[in-house]
Amino acid sequence: MKTVLPRFIAVSLLIVLTPLSLEGKPRARDLGIPFAGTPGSHNAITDVQGVEVGHATLIAGQGKLKVGEGPVRTGVTAVLPRGRSDLRPAFGAWFSLNGNGEMTGTTWLEESGVLEGPVMVSNTHSVGIVRDAVIEWLVKKSGSQQSWALPIVAETFDGWLNDINGFHVKAAHAWQALEAATSGPVPEGNVGGGTGMICYEFKGGIGTSSRRLSEKGGGYVVGVLVQANFGLRSQLQIAGVPVGVEINDGLVWSKETGSIIVVLATDAPLLPHQLKRLARRIPLGMARTGSISGNGSGDIFIAFSTANVEATEAKEAVASLRMLRNSDMNGLFEATVQATEEAIINALVAAETMTGINDHEVLALPHDRVKAILEKYQRRAQDRRAPPP
Amino acid sequence: MKTVLPRFIAVSLLIVLTPLSLEGKPRARDLGIPFAGTPGSHNAITDVQGVEVGHATLIAGQGKLKVGEGPVRTGVTAVLPRGRSDLRPAFGAWFSLNGNGEMTGTTWLEESGVLEGPVMVSNTHSVGIVRDAVIEWLVKKSGSQQSWALPIVAETFDGWLNDINGFHVKAAHAWQALEAATSGPVPEGNVGGGTGMICYEFKGGIGTSSRRLSEKGGGYVVGVLVQANFGLRSQLQIAGVPVGVEINDGLVWSKETGSIIVVLATDAPLLPHQLKRLARRIPLGMARTGSISGNGSGDIFIAFSTANVEATEAKEAVASLRMLRNSDMNGLFEATVQATEEAIINALVAAETMTGINDHEVLALPHDRVKAILEKYQRRAQDRRAPPP
Amino acid sequence: MKTVLPRFIAVSLLIVLTPLSLEGKPRARDLGIPFAGTPGSHNAITDVQGVEVGHATLIAGQGKLKVGEGPVRTGVTAVLPRGRSDLRPAFGAWFSLNGNGEMTGTTWLEESGVLEGPVMVSNTHSVGIVRDAVIEWLVKKSGSQQSWALPIVAETFDGWLNDINGFHVKAAHAWQALEAATSGPVPEGNVGGGTGMICYEFKGGIGTSSRRLSEKGGGYVVGVLVQANFGLRSQLQIAGVPVGVEINDGLVWSKETGSIIVVLATDAPLLPHQLKRLARRIPLGMARTGSISGNGSGDIFIAFSTANVEATEAKEAVASLRMLRNSDMNGLFEATVQATEEAIINALVAAETMTGINDHEVLALPHDRVKAILEKYQRRAQDRRAPPP
Amino acid sequence: MKTVLPRFIAVSLLIVLTPLSLEGKPRARDLGIPFAGTPGSHNAITDVQGVEVGHATLIAGQGKLKVGEGPVRTGVTAVLPRGRSDLRPAFGAWFSLNGNGEMTGTTWLEESGVLEGPVMVSNTHSVGIVRDAVIEWLVKKSGSQQSWALPIVAETFDGWLNDINGFHVKAAHAWQALEAATSGPVPEGNVGGGTGMICYEFKGGIGTSSRRLSEKGGGYVVGVLVQANFGLRSQLQIAGVPVGVEINDGLVWSKETGSIIVVLATDAPLLPHQLKRLARRIPLGMARTGSISGNGSGDIFIAFSTANVEATEAKEAVASLRMLRNSDMNGLFEATVQATEEAIINALVAAETMTGINDHEVLALPHDRVKAILEKYQRRAQDRRAPPP
Repeated sequence: MKTVLPRFIAVSLLIVLTPLSLEGKPRARDLGIPFAGTPGSHNAITDVQGVEVGHATLIAGQGKLKVGEGPVRTGVTAVLPRGRSDLRPAFGAWFSLNGNGEMTGTTWLEESGVLEGPVMVSNTHSVGIVRDAVIEWLVKKSGSQQSWALPIVAETFDGWLNDINGFHVKAAHAWQALEAATSGPVPEGNVGGGTGMICYEFKGGIGTSSRRLSEKGGGYVVGVLVQANFGLRSQLQIAGVPVGVEINDGLVWSKETGSIIVVLATDAPLLPHQLKRLARRIPLGMARTGSISGNGSGDIFIAFSTANVEATEAKEAVASLRMLRNSDMNGLFEATVQATEEAIINALVAAETMTGINDHEVLALPHDRVKAILEKYQRRAQDRRAPPP
Repeated sequence: MKTVLPRFIAVSLLIVLTPLSLEGKPRARDLGIPFAGTPGSHNAITDVQGVEVGHATLIAGQGKLKVGEGPVRTGVTAVLPRGRSDLRPAFGAWFSLNGNGEMTGTTWLEESGVLEGPVMVSNTHSVGIVRDAVIEWLVKKSGSQQSWALPIVAETFDGWLNDINGFHVKAAHAWQALEAATSGPVPEGNVGGGTGMICYEFKGGIGTSSRRLSEKGGGYVVGVLVQANFGLRSQLQIAGVPVGVEINDGLVWSKETGSIIVVLATDAPLLPHQLKRLARRIPLGMARTGSISGNGSGDIFIAFSTANVEATEAKEAVASLRMLRNSDMNGLFEATVQATEEAIINALVAAETMTGINDHEVLALPHDRVKAILEKYQRRAQDRRAPPP
Repeated sequence: MKTVLPRFIAVSLLIVLTPLSLEGKPRARDLGIPFAGTPGSHNAITDVQGVEVGHATLIAGQGKLKVGEGPVRTGVTAVLPRGRSDLRPAFGAWFSLNGNGEMTGTTWLEESGVLEGPVMVSNTHSVGIVRDAVIEWLVKKSGSQQSWALPIVAETFDGWLNDINGFHVKAAHAWQALEAATSGPVPEGNVGGGTGMICYEFKGGIGTSSRRLSEKGGGYVVGVLVQANFGLRSQLQIAGVPVGVEINDGLVWSKETGSIIVVLATDAPLLPHQLKRLARRIPLGMARTGSISGNGSGDIFIAFSTANVEATEAKEAVASLRMLRNSDMNGLFEATVQATEEAIINALVAAETMTGINDHEVLALPHDRVKAILEKYQRRAQDRRAPPP
Repeated sequence: MKTVLPRFIAVSLLIVLTPLSLEGKPRARDLGIPFAGTPGSHNAITDVQGVEVGHATLIAGQGKLKVGEGPVRTGVTAVLPRGRSDLRPAFGAWFSLNGNGEMTGTTWLEESGVLEGPVMVSNTHSVGIVRDAVIEWLVKKSGSQQSWALPIVAETFDGWLNDINGFHVKAAHAWQALEAATSGPVPEGNVGGGTGMICYEFKGGIGTSSRRLSEKGGGYVVGVLVQANFGLRSQLQIAGVPVGVEINDGLVWSKETGSIIVVLATDAPLLPHQLKRLARRIPLGMARTGSISGNGSGDIFIAFSTANVEATEAKEAVASLRMLRNSDMNGLFEATVQATEEAIINALVAAETMTGINDHEVLALPHDRVKAILEKYQRRAQDRRAPPP
């Protein structure tokens, strides 16, 4: 017989210790939303050592749409597995829950098991420009005229708020996101590729979270970054509570649309086929927020490991590497589910009300109402001190 | 702006009307667990017209394990897409969330898009005998000496309660399950292949549920049958409520083990690649009960459509068929998630405490405690009249 | 017992009747290379009714490479399943033999079973610009500001002859290829996306071929277009004859590099999972020319069917469609293998010697030597009148 | 510029040195069929150190079929990656070119990347009995009552010669094949699972071959074992020569039927996703013998590596292992294609004329006619001294 009591204590302490976000904005935990598991120090994908994130955010104009002139509500987000100063490859894998979207570069990722270069996320109609821009950036970085690359670029659709067919993202914006990449806290909400996104009919965008396993579990970190742009309001669940049913005003859609891109990083020494096991669990985290993965959704996920750098750079024919055995992966599976759930809620909590093309307005998740609903269902963390497993 | 109010009314009425199970035993809805969506008349996979289910249940002996002698706690469950009297094929597809298990016949299912014959579920070490028994049964049914078949047989592991290495399932038990198949209410819990199964460290086994779409949504039925044998107690969520944290006595495992097989039927006219879309959503329903799909879990799913029978039997080179367009599938996705969630909880509610080999005892889910916990979290259906979406 | 004699006669007549290519250049059959099966009237992918092909060819400059200035040896090829005037979708599927390359848009193709828009092929570093250009073209065509698209764009690497990091392909070139698309004979060799390609260390590029099934076999047409840029000389086999061993001068590579993109069209009424069966046979055709699909090769294939247009455009929730049964697909499999083999050899026969960056020269396949080698091995068609099956 | 001359010399010497088969029967090379590459000492899958192969062959009765009584022409073949005395797992992967067949256990193989236990091949209707028999054998070997397993068992259909619906294979035959497993030369033709098989309308069955890479290429060995039961006569090519067109008497089928199972072993340190790359090349070897992989064919392949045994047995959470980098895999790809081609032809050369149920007779490949045809096409090895690449 085991007891789960100690974990509760650890978690409730952590809630107290979690710092507010970059500009003092609250994050999901700060509202008293109970999440299981122990996050890393920034509760962000950058808790995986080496990972850097950069954003380029484009916001300009207002009022009626004039294609090519705006208004503009879009951007680019870059995730660099080993940071800007270390472009060596990493083992990686991907999974598509519902493929109504794009993630370039996955064919070689699947074949080789190796992620070469950054992971970029932007809007649907800017995938191409970002892709070629990454090649140009890599060519310059490597200094070789014969270089080639098959970059990973994903997208979600921001055409409700953004002049998407104006093609406002330029190569320079992709480079800007790459050059802005840093470790530490990650801006969330209306930033980078997430600038014009909508989630559960609230303003969505970029969110991130992480989990650190116990020393007994290996002490590994799993970090998740999402570009959240999916879901109908009525589907939204927070900590098992039907928040979307309770807040049924300010709706946007008549039918589901949108997508979610998830980037998962870990320092656990996983082989490519094991990283795919993590990617395949990301839907389990999405489901905890209410997703049914609608037909219009491009729910596409990539997972990489920063371990085994000597193996993936491959200086000799045979490399030495390390592998976590399959039977020790459960902690990583749990972390994947938990961090995905929290990253989505973090995106909702961070995003602010935005008005875009044709005065389309999308409201932010109202923090006070969420707190009240959690309390009504006896689920607010500081009241309960007993988050779910 | 839309209102979701009318749906609540419909659902709460349905809860009242749902009949008790075969022997008057309560099902999950009868406990006041709030589930979204409208089930079919039996809230079972057999609500999809034509589908028949049969069980062969083997329970014998008690006390210390003597391999080959028992105790025996196992069985076989058969699902026939068009019933025993119509063995014509059906479009089908499969998906593995975590492949630590077996489902034979999937290679041809994937290649051809067609499910030929029944879907069988038993224990891990009886897949072979059941498979060959199905061939023998089909050969006799067809009367042809040159017949051949690649049967679908899946499994979960019942070695905690059952003398699994005694190989007690014989060909006759497979035939018995096939010949017992009927439409109408489906026995749940400790029956058929589910006899010796364990779910979230409560007694598990067979569970079923269904959803009927609105006429506007096409009026299609989605039915799900699970053989539930997975999960740690602490993970269990019911209607978003952390039931497993609340009931932390009577535990069984030190680490996750077990599996779940899910059989999904629909009468919607879906092509094979569309049925795979349904199969890929089954994890979203599992996740709502708390699953993280542990390493030891064989979480393998099959989906078939009873529509288009003229096409799948293929009397001429070119057949006519019908297809629901992708953009109208969201109702089926929602139904898949909802019916999967409810079928798992139905298995838990129906299964009764069992003692197996070496006096291993696995307790049933305590109905009264579940009701009390739901009330504590303001989630019991008759109190709230507002089930989640 | 069956006799295969009549087929020989048909084939040998066809060889006589096959017209020379566009500018009177010989094609592979004209050299007496024996191919099995009956091609369509143009022996091209355009023999599938409705299919149109357009090229934009960029050739400029010579001498030493100055990145951004040239020399330029590249282009874009567009394949439109129903032509420029009918952009309705088509059932489609894809397969990657060795994924060291890019084909965008495949995630939605796999999920939906539907190919929306054209298939584009260019060089590796121009996939992005071509992709976004296709969106812009589709948006203009549809006249809707809210349109979106996930275009299919594939590539092979032409950096041995072309200033690939000069990014010379512009959006206008993609539109030029699209607007140039026509039915009828298809220019081969150093044209479009194939302009700077190398195959078996001879000059490669675009090649095409088709097969028309007998009326008894359904009368369907299978058309193949390749952008051939793969293989070591020593591997090259033509009609089973080790031509690459016999012609071992003018070599280019020290190790294998390059790729092949194959686009397959048919008018047979195949569902998406059946089209994948065709795509998965394309390697069998490649193998007949000697390919081992090296690590550096992006061998990626797409197959689509022009049948069932009413179903794929999906005006109502449920569409009627037709399906060829699996057991009648062997003729299509054979046609796929044969047309793939011949399209590759056609690319080699059509391509002409080219000098590119830094005076790199790649020689054309020498027609006279091929004829002589075939005669030495008793395999030249007019001598033997007995092509292989 | 490189020269290929030295390889020719090495190969032609090797042909001279290759020993005759077990009982002095010639193998394909002995007939002067030119194959490229350098085989291991036995030109068999057992050239990969540790691999053992065992057969149980069942031949009884003659004349008219009485289901259950015979005639019997079937058997079981066992391949043990590390031999009978070392059941530790091995990295593995699988691929299905055309899934009209069965290979159990592949779902866990795909998920875990690990092959646990032997690979068994039998007839279509004996997969189940063999599967459960392997579990029983493993349980006895391990001595643990709680053991479980998901065995790999594949099949091809022998119902033209064998009373397949008589279910003559018993558990004891599976054990017999396992216990008979040895290293060294491998019996080919009408043995084990291959006893009643038919290939290109000649008698088929078991065949094997191997390739040893140069020291510069790593010195790795690739071994292949096939159970060949596929193809129409007219499709058969040997060394690029249309032998099937030349020998068009003694035909069996009106349409293609049958299948091929291929087991590939290597000692190269490959990760699971790299082994899948080898498995995906097996069709390229099949294609060189003429295969189009017909609809009725179960063309299913498994590949495993005997390297990294410490990692796959996983005594600690993190294991050390070695990996060959992707860019050094071309030699293994070439070896895979070559050994697959030769193993199929070896099966044809070894198999002897057989009469089965209802006096069905299938003729052996006539060695003398093959020699004559090769000579006619200038392709017989001792005449040419220049095998293809």
